[in-house]
Amino acid sequence: MVSDSDVSEKAPLCDQVPRELGEYRASIDNLDAALVHLLAERFRVTRKVGELKRQEALPPADEGREERQLLRLKEIATTAGLDPTVVDLIFPALMSEVRRRHQELRGDGPRPL
Amino acid sequence: MVSDSDVSEKAPLCDQVPRELGEYRASIDNLDAALVHLLAERFRVTRKVGELKRQEALPPADEGREERQLLRLKEIATTAGLDPTVVDLIFPALMSEVRRRHQELRGDGPRPL
Repeated sequence: MVSDSDVSEKAPLCDQVPRELGEYRASIDNLDAALVHLLAERFRVTRKVGELKRQEALPPADEGREERQLLRLKEIATTAGLDPTVVDLIFPALMSEVRRRHQELRGDGPRPL
Repeated sequence: MVSDSDVSEKAPLCDQVPRELGEYRASIDNLDAALVHLLAERFRVTRKVGELKRQEALPPADEGREERQLLRLKEIATTAGLDPTVVDLIFPALMSEVRRRHQELRGDGPRPL
């Protein structure tokens, strides 16, 4: 049999889990909003790059640069305590989308140099 | 025939493209470093969530929450001038990785509730 005192002692412990989870989720939501704002700025800049490349008939991608970017970001990830494989989850997809948009900006496909 | 004066007049224009491209790329590199640092913090927080869920035998994912997160982030993207489809490029992959890690933390697979 559970006495009233047992219930009243347990209640704060039961509340603690959703409160802790709620606080973590508030942090995740803030970080995600910040991520979206940074992505918005990144696409603003890559659009300018795309326009410059179209004007100057430069190729839509520089494979060497993408490889260097990924290597550098994996180093930054490791220093920041983030598993560097997370970089592969995000950045190749971003870079591929940017490349697609650069191609779109200059017409159906990349023009010959 | 190209005179010396033509060359000297053209030189600054030729330099302008790589300089402009270089400046945009410096911005992209800074934004990417910031993105990686935010991702590091996001995974630091989701690890705490995973540990809490393991302790309390909570399920590794809350599908309803993921859908709400995606909707909210697409709204933030639209307000920030970012094509909301970019949210689909990034966040489902992140959420799936977090879910995988939560499952790993609690053993081979999700325990029954």
